[in-house]
Amino acid sequence: MKLAEIANQLNSDIKKNNRFILFPHVMADGDAVGCCIALAKYLQVIKKDVIILMEEKIPSVYMFMNEGIDIQIYDESKKYEYEVCIALDTGDINRLGKRQGIYLSSITYNIDHHKTNNEYGLYNYIDCDASSVGEILFYLMKQMGVRIDHDMAQGIYVAISTDTGGFRYQNTNKKCFEISAELMDTGIDIQKISEWVFEKTNLKKLRLYESTIQNIKIYFNGKVALSSIRYDEYKSLDVTDEDFEGLVNIVKNIDGVDVGVFVRDRDNGEVKVNLRSNVDMVDVSLIACENNGGGHTRAAGFVSTKSTGEVCKLIMKSLEKYYQ
Amino acid sequence: MKLAEIANQLNSDIKKNNRFILFPHVMADGDAVGCCIALAKYLQVIKKDVIILMEEKIPSVYMFMNEGIDIQIYDESKKYEYEVCIALDTGDINRLGKRQGIYLSSITYNIDHHKTNNEYGLYNYIDCDASSVGEILFYLMKQMGVRIDHDMAQGIYVAISTDTGGFRYQNTNKKCFEISAELMDTGIDIQKISEWVFEKTNLKKLRLYESTIQNIKIYFNGKVALSSIRYDEYKSLDVTDEDFEGLVNIVKNIDGVDVGVFVRDRDNGEVKVNLRSNVDMVDVSLIACENNGGGHTRAAGFVSTKSTGEVCKLIMKSLEKYYQ
Repeated sequence: MKLAEIANQLNSDIKKNNRFILFPHVMADGDAVGCCIALAKYLQVIKKDVIILMEEKIPSVYMFMNEGIDIQIYDESKKYEYEVCIALDTGDINRLGKRQGIYLSSITYNIDHHKTNNEYGLYNYIDCDASSVGEILFYLMKQMGVRIDHDMAQGIYVAISTDTGGFRYQNTNKKCFEISAELMDTGIDIQKISEWVFEKTNLKKLRLYESTIQNIKIYFNGKVALSSIRYDEYKSLDVTDEDFEGLVNIVKNIDGVDVGVFVRDRDNGEVKVNLRSNVDMVDVSLIACENNGGGHTRAAGFVSTKSTGEVCKLIMKSLEKYYQ
Repeated sequence: MKLAEIANQLNSDIKKNNRFILFPHVMADGDAVGCCIALAKYLQVIKKDVIILMEEKIPSVYMFMNEGIDIQIYDESKKYEYEVCIALDTGDINRLGKRQGIYLSSITYNIDHHKTNNEYGLYNYIDCDASSVGEILFYLMKQMGVRIDHDMAQGIYVAISTDTGGFRYQNTNKKCFEISAELMDTGIDIQKISEWVFEKTNLKKLRLYESTIQNIKIYFNGKVALSSIRYDEYKSLDVTDEDFEGLVNIVKNIDGVDVGVFVRDRDNGEVKVNLRSNVDMVDVSLIACENNGGGHTRAAGFVSTKSTGEVCKLIMKSLEKYYQ
């Protein structure tokens, strides 16, 4: 569908119906949560019943902007009443987790920017060139004739800024800046938002950071840096897989390093490996593939049943040809 | 001077003269270096002789964008030949360090955004409302009729993005985003720039980070977090004062913390203290003033000749009234 078509369709369904459920994907991120909140705020303004139905609890860093919005965690035993379901930032129906049944038995919208989206909704609007669904939602709301207010702007800004890593990733485009400029007219507080979504940390994350730094080893004259965390180092911390995200960047970003490797023992005895390359010369997806993993030239990974020591040796063996 | 006036004056001096020196302030940051590089690139394009005269070595994180530019560290024994000197982001003549003599004996420009700038140049253009001198330089170059190319855009983008902490600080304004959108038309690589100026780190910084996390202590039920680094923990690391900047944010940004305190032993036996508050209730400048320091409500500091232990006790004593 074209932007004008989806805007007209959604406007018409909003006119005809009263009860809406908005769906972020499982393990919701800032783009999914921010868009749900922006759209929920709009539906509230025009006096519709709206809930955001989450698979898990909303991450605490987004809890500064959900005041007055009915955010519920899916409960199988509960009866939900609704006519229209809108999935945001959800590339695949399985990313709706246990909420698929609810979603599918209604008028369904699927608004997304993932290349792999297979158009599982009744109405689909997929723009793979968009930095974020926040970017899509901004233009969609404008096309629908929505007057974007402070709270909607805040949601959209969170969506765009988090999905671009704070305007740092490759997907940052001209529109991200143009939209942000326009959103500022609503009086959003960039510093407050940024403190919540980018700066806030907790002792658990800091301890993982500390262990990662502590365990850094340098190879091949500073060209390769590896760090690892053993299970016994984090088992007392009550961490989830998510908490390890980004730790590989600590080694990747050391001055002079070509390849950063982060290795973590899982509680089930498996070893999870993240590989990052800063140079075209080293394609880390090759190393991942050798170990039944996958990924891209500059970011790849695999899971192994070998010991951490063995895995590290194998990786260094694969990197030898570049540095010896 | 008004923007049009300074633009005309500078265009006229560029027409009449051939040798230019650009001055970033001592301990040059991204705004100063980025602006100097952008302006130097322009002067090169129109075939002028231009050098950037630094007080110290250019920080390595900006060395991805200085190719082809003559950047020199000031050498008292050297004779410099020039007609026009331009200080950028330099709020005070003393911030030119040992280069003041060179600067003053020419046609001098002073382009800045510091409130405290006392107009020490022959021609002064000070805009205190600007997020950065990068923002000023963008509009100035446009007013001068400059076609901003990729390299100039890169310098301006570095200036704006670093001075706003990557569009996160309070000074981030609508113009920052509008300018960034326009600069993207020149093909600047946001991801590459951001990796250099925001992500790059080194083992020395990581070790300071590690010690800071290791030494975190929590007070008043999680409302106050303090960390400290002893001299013996960093004396082997070859660090400068600059390397400690930002460490206080580790404690400030812990979820639930109102007040973050960072305490560091200096090699001369003094103790340097940084205080940060996240809440209006606690004005940390009061604590700083009690100890002959200063600052603002939410960011203050002092230096003490007492022992670290004594200093920490004094700070907690001052905070007691809020939390007991």
